[in-house]
Amino acid sequence: MIRHTVAFRLKHPSGSAMEQDFLRAACELAKIEGVRKFECLRQTSRKNPFTFGLSMEFADEAAYAFYSEHPEHTAFVKERWIPEVEEFMELDYVAHAP
Amino acid sequence: MIRHTVAFRLKHPSGSAMEQDFLRAACELAKIEGVRKFECLRQTSRKNPFTFGLSMEFADEAAYAFYSEHPEHTAFVKERWIPEVEEFMELDYVAHAP
Repeated sequence: MIRHTVAFRLKHPSGSAMEQDFLRAACELAKIEGVRKFECLRQTSRKNPFTFGLSMEFADEAAYAFYSEHPEHTAFVKERWIPEVEEFMELDYVAHAP
Repeated sequence: MIRHTVAFRLKHPSGSAMEQDFLRAACELAKIEGVRKFECLRQTSRKNPFTFGLSMEFADEAAYAFYSEHPEHTAFVKERWIPEVEEFMELDYVAHAP
């Protein structure tokens, strides 16, 4: 299992229709084959600059790559993410037993 | 539900006994009352400087505060986290329906 997450802050005003429209478009990514446990999240800690997050899981690297390269994902990145996101950080996790 | 996460990088060499000892000590935090779905994670994206992560969930702000103020947590922060962690970022999430 690979958990892909991204914390981000939009250029849009908080609570705006543009913010809501962006988040709804992001949620459409959940429909791409292989995406599991998709979550739209609000980031609430004041210890970082981000206000939202997305989290999803993939069974393996192949499923992650299928998503990353999927035309619906690449179009979303080009048409929505790059123009509308002010700042972001990607974090990917796998289970670790120390 | 509040998901509390922290991504971090240790001062210890990768694969060292000190690294393993730190992670095992961190996992003891799972025993504090109110901590749910505790996960020890390896961070795998090259798009950030972190190598590990911890994730846990709390039912509400009261449970989160109980954890934050718990003597076992504050002792861990003072005796292990501050001396042994090079860099970290906390991210807290709640579900958001756009």
